[in-house]
Amino acid sequence: MSRIDGRTPQQLRPVTIERGWSKHAEGSVLVSFGDTKVLCNASVTEGVPRWRKGSGEGWVTAEYAMLPRATNTRGDRESVKGRIGGRTHEISRLIGRSLRAVIDYKQLGENTVVLDCDVLQADGGTRTAAITGAYVALADAIAWGQTKKLIRPSRKPLTGTVSAVSVGIVDGTPLLDLRYEEDVRADTDMNVVCTGDGRFVEVQGTAEAEPFARDELNTLLDLATAGCADLAALQRKALDETLER
Amino acid sequence: MSRIDGRTPQQLRPVTIERGWSKHAEGSVLVSFGDTKVLCNASVTEGVPRWRKGSGEGWVTAEYAMLPRATNTRGDRESVKGRIGGRTHEISRLIGRSLRAVIDYKQLGENTVVLDCDVLQADGGTRTAAITGAYVALADAIAWGQTKKLIRPSRKPLTGTVSAVSVGIVDGTPLLDLRYEEDVRADTDMNVVCTGDGRFVEVQGTAEAEPFARDELNTLLDLATAGCADLAALQRKALDETLER
Amino acid sequence: MSRIDGRTPQQLRPVTIERGWSKHAEGSVLVSFGDTKVLCNASVTEGVPRWRKGSGEGWVTAEYAMLPRATNTRGDRESVKGRIGGRTHEISRLIGRSLRAVIDYKQLGENTVVLDCDVLQADGGTRTAAITGAYVALADAIAWGQTKKLIRPSRKPLTGTVSAVSVGIVDGTPLLDLRYEEDVRADTDMNVVCTGDGRFVEVQGTAEAEPFARDELNTLLDLATAGCADLAALQRKALDETLER
Amino acid sequence: MSRIDGRTPQQLRPVTIERGWSKHAEGSVLVSFGDTKVLCNASVTEGVPRWRKGSGEGWVTAEYAMLPRATNTRGDRESVKGRIGGRTHEISRLIGRSLRAVIDYKQLGENTVVLDCDVLQADGGTRTAAITGAYVALADAIAWGQTKKLIRPSRKPLTGTVSAVSVGIVDGTPLLDLRYEEDVRADTDMNVVCTGDGRFVEVQGTAEAEPFARDELNTLLDLATAGCADLAALQRKALDETLER
Amino acid sequence: MSRIDGRTPQQLRPVTIERGWSKHAEGSVLVSFGDTKVLCNASVTEGVPRWRKGSGEGWVTAEYAMLPRATNTRGDRESVKGRIGGRTHEISRLIGRSLRAVIDYKQLGENTVVLDCDVLQADGGTRTAAITGAYVALADAIAWGQTKKLIRPSRKPLTGTVSAVSVGIVDGTPLLDLRYEEDVRADTDMNVVCTGDGRFVEVQGTAEAEPFARDELNTLLDLATAGCADLAALQRKALDETLER
Amino acid sequence: MSRIDGRTPQQLRPVTIERGWSKHAEGSVLVSFGDTKVLCNASVTEGVPRWRKGSGEGWVTAEYAMLPRATNTRGDRESVKGRIGGRTHEISRLIGRSLRAVIDYKQLGENTVVLDCDVLQADGGTRTAAITGAYVALADAIAWGQTKKLIRPSRKPLTGTVSAVSVGIVDGTPLLDLRYEEDVRADTDMNVVCTGDGRFVEVQGTAEAEPFARDELNTLLDLATAGCADLAALQRKALDETLER
Repeated sequence: MSRIDGRTPQQLRPVTIERGWSKHAEGSVLVSFGDTKVLCNASVTEGVPRWRKGSGEGWVTAEYAMLPRATNTRGDRESVKGRIGGRTHEISRLIGRSLRAVIDYKQLGENTVVLDCDVLQADGGTRTAAITGAYVALADAIAWGQTKKLIRPSRKPLTGTVSAVSVGIVDGTPLLDLRYEEDVRADTDMNVVCTGDGRFVEVQGTAEAEPFARDELNTLLDLATAGCADLAALQRKALDETLER
Repeated sequence: MSRIDGRTPQQLRPVTIERGWSKHAEGSVLVSFGDTKVLCNASVTEGVPRWRKGSGEGWVTAEYAMLPRATNTRGDRESVKGRIGGRTHEISRLIGRSLRAVIDYKQLGENTVVLDCDVLQADGGTRTAAITGAYVALADAIAWGQTKKLIRPSRKPLTGTVSAVSVGIVDGTPLLDLRYEEDVRADTDMNVVCTGDGRFVEVQGTAEAEPFARDELNTLLDLATAGCADLAALQRKALDETLER
Repeated sequence: MSRIDGRTPQQLRPVTIERGWSKHAEGSVLVSFGDTKVLCNASVTEGVPRWRKGSGEGWVTAEYAMLPRATNTRGDRESVKGRIGGRTHEISRLIGRSLRAVIDYKQLGENTVVLDCDVLQADGGTRTAAITGAYVALADAIAWGQTKKLIRPSRKPLTGTVSAVSVGIVDGTPLLDLRYEEDVRADTDMNVVCTGDGRFVEVQGTAEAEPFARDELNTLLDLATAGCADLAALQRKALDETLER
Repeated sequence: MSRIDGRTPQQLRPVTIERGWSKHAEGSVLVSFGDTKVLCNASVTEGVPRWRKGSGEGWVTAEYAMLPRATNTRGDRESVKGRIGGRTHEISRLIGRSLRAVIDYKQLGENTVVLDCDVLQADGGTRTAAITGAYVALADAIAWGQTKKLIRPSRKPLTGTVSAVSVGIVDGTPLLDLRYEEDVRADTDMNVVCTGDGRFVEVQGTAEAEPFARDELNTLLDLATAGCADLAALQRKALDETLER
Repeated sequence: MSRIDGRTPQQLRPVTIERGWSKHAEGSVLVSFGDTKVLCNASVTEGVPRWRKGSGEGWVTAEYAMLPRATNTRGDRESVKGRIGGRTHEISRLIGRSLRAVIDYKQLGENTVVLDCDVLQADGGTRTAAITGAYVALADAIAWGQTKKLIRPSRKPLTGTVSAVSVGIVDGTPLLDLRYEEDVRADTDMNVVCTGDGRFVEVQGTAEAEPFARDELNTLLDLATAGCADLAALQRKALDETLER
Repeated sequence: MSRIDGRTPQQLRPVTIERGWSKHAEGSVLVSFGDTKVLCNASVTEGVPRWRKGSGEGWVTAEYAMLPRATNTRGDRESVKGRIGGRTHEISRLIGRSLRAVIDYKQLGENTVVLDCDVLQADGGTRTAAITGAYVALADAIAWGQTKKLIRPSRKPLTGTVSAVSVGIVDGTPLLDLRYEEDVRADTDMNVVCTGDGRFVEVQGTAEAEPFARDELNTLLDLATAGCADLAALQRKALDETLER
């Protein structure tokens, strides 16, 4: 089977990770997975939420949102509706948990990093692109915090790296990194978040139409593990470049 | 290792499924997984949401909530706060998707079933108890709809059964159906929703502390699949009894 | 005239008061007036709201709510609507005032008791059942606070007991403790809250159809006073039993 | 005992009822009970809420609010807080019910009257002043509707008149029409709404400190009935004057 | 061209400024520009918002609102809608900025004055009437603060006076102080806020239909400057009278 | 005086207008005024809001928002706060009015264009950049509508062009197109919206510190008129290029 854009089933879309996109944020990454573009800004502030004060430990959290016309038809703004939808809540929580999986709170000290992941253009996989980009923004923000002596330079708040990818079964074929058109046709849809050493942080599989069997699950996990490893390599490469501030 | 309540790692808590709990709802189940008690009320109405009108297809949705003192310390009411939290949204969506996985919309006709899952007492596993109980309430509601001729008696809106259970790794040991005290100590926490024929509807695994390896994931899936099968048997047994209305 | 359920005009429905219903709350009562079932959970916390700090006096408040399918047709959740309705506000305030009428704030010390009254099934008289059950939950919560030394054992924060009942004129006949079907047909509807010594805490009479005359008011007050005395006896009996925690 | 302002216990404050206060509203009354000033505007619109369409019957409803600095210390605006408080809800509902008690919906036809009662200055008794003034505004609005042929001139949508007054026990003495300073010192506080023929529409008595006995209740009802009769006379007098539009 | 009410193009409507309208507020002015009536209450409190604490400087802010039936057709209450509209926000901010333009924060000391401008009846120019009246209420509130020694009597928190007026081009003719009927027909609509010495605090011109040319702008500014000077004289005259408290 | 970035007082920052930025929107422009970057997406839908149906006339509206980290310190999301702030409301309304000034509703037919202006990075002048970019997106959206035959190709819904710029007095010097650092130091701040033929659509001048005199106003208007003309030329140049879809 050939995919809409000519990729093989095991192939990621072209991925770009542009660091230093915004001049204000301590870490700022414009990540793209094909036509999906997410701006990930990391904001560092001294201090932690009230329930964590005096613990000597830091905090990392995330907020995800879509611009109203990131998608093919315009969606109403959640600020205008006066409430955040379930999907937005769910993805914000997923991104936050994923990044916290590679954070050593003690090493971070009583500092907070907020990751704002705003989808500028959507074409499937916005949450996995957001996690992958937000990790790079987080790494830049922590490096900034060490330069500014908010975080002691000898400390290592990051215990590993984290990346994410979607997989799904479309017309019986397991595919990596679904575009929107593939996503809507998928029977099963899974988002997998891995650390750089190939372990799992999150596995979220959903039967959209037919329930899926154990061997299908296994095939999807194989695909996703390989995809996450490719993304981890791209993250490393992006971080190896010098960031001018 | 012996568990707090003396269970083996592969053992469910005592499960009860009490049908016909409320006199008003078309399906009403009080389900308990040990000290976790969830009231699952199914409400049937003719007609569907606007976006589905004229399709000839029905709709099933769910709302999950906790009483303020279902937990050990009182939580503020979401109605008083004026907004629904992310966790509530996430679980409501999970329950709805799980039930829709065994619904044939065409067979349901243009009818809507709303499942209200209200946690009266919580001790871990509220979302899995809710799914397990809500399935039984849904089955009763559909039977009611067929008695009332809203749904043609010859139709089969249910394509299977669905149940759910939590699994996790606590102090290195994989455990089935975690109580609250086990849940807070778990390194990895997974909720698995299965159909009665042993396939997956949802797999949601989260590394709470350490990322988890593929073999740990496999062990957890084995545990969960067996647990869901036990629950499916209990659901069948409950539905085999005659419900007096 | 014979009533739907065969009661005499002066007769209460079967009343049950089940203490210790939830394992978490400091006081937990499932009260039923016939098919009306209300779960009343009392939560004790050290400290008082900001405006009362340093006064040496405690505080008691209440929140009332209905499960969406407590009634014959499903009502939208107030948490989903994002706002609390007038009826909910009104009843929450009534319950709080009624309980505060038998509290000596000085004796309570700087502690707060919140009474959550959640209607699990409704068939008329939910607010009066809530007050009657909440008093028992409050008494249990205070006893708990004395065991835990939050409140000195020598103190007497309760200055009396409080119970409540509805009365109304249906087809010209004054009736005690209206069921839903009677309530909707009533010309006049009154809720009366009494102390155990027969005095009034609240009298709320409303002409639903015809304004009512002074002698009708008097007959209704007679009925209600007797009904509250019966309820007070049931409360005493329930509290005389030993509560195992 | 002499009262702060020299009144006898049975005496109303000076009451003024100024019709035609606003040029826009179909009925517009500025009512004052001493220093309590409430602007009552009645708005007539053709048609009724959706749930009443096609019934041939009209609807009357009310909204009560206070200007932020109507009271001695400034209160936050409910529009700024984004939610209506329990007290506001409760009083709005009371005013609506009171006016509907003298409305014959059939005679009103499918028209809606909304009564906006905005407290410009508060000194106790704002809800009773609002009801008393709103009745006059409602009468003017109905007359306007008959002039404009929205309501057939031969019809009589008003079945009677309605007025309201507060009573309370202060330092052991029952008093009519409490000012704010008296209100805060009252042991028992009651609001009574009567029709012009002396029957009751609403009786709402609350023990603020001590529960009250049956004979105290009787004394308060005597006082209130006489006060409402005085107010009914003032309403008639106001309505006897010609209103220039 | 003769105007609806016979005024010349350069003429204000009859303006009244009634001080001491409410007995509670520290400054209370009922201002009318023809049929537009706005109640402006100034509330003084010790202390400033958190972000200004310890600065030794005070704060002045304003909130504008309309009664639901201030206009020809009833508008929904913003408190009921649960959100403040854009127009309300915009005008509240304009009034606040206009008054702060004549405040010396240092001289005011750490005190806050809130100006509540509630439109009781609207006939065009509500925001300009509000600013003009609010200035007088602010002056009274500051004088009160000096009497009460909240503000040292030697200080001069007011650096000038401020008034406002609307101007517009209707059927080609530039007009001062538009009534509602003129306002809706205006091609260009401008609100101008001036200090007593004839300088500008705010100039807000909007092309409602046709864009306007520079010479039209100049003519409107001439009209507005003269109108503001007339209003400043009326403010001075009102403040020259003795205010009994 | 030399400016921070070396510009003359009469000079705009480098302006870029990138059309076709997003693949989804009917018109999509990324506009930058120096470091201020605003994404302006125009969405075309058939039909108009309810109050305009059947008029044969179209509608144009706008929504403005800032990403949380568009600024130097992170701002809370308005969707999370559950309400839109006054500044956001004000600017959204300004952009909408400015674009409607060059729209012939009849020629547009019953179609709606929504302009979403999301600030990705802020450095002063976000509202003027938004108006300038939104005009270009609007022109592209209308051209799209004509290609798709939603709007008849013979029609001319645009009656002119519109652009906007800020001006202000900083340390006594009138400056064009203020950066953030200049804006916070400005005594007077003015936003001016002009049509391509040099007439005014909006003039909004605010005294931030000192009131401003008539001659200062004149100088600022001269500066702004010239700046808008430069922007109009840049808009024309951008629109002259071919847009590939």
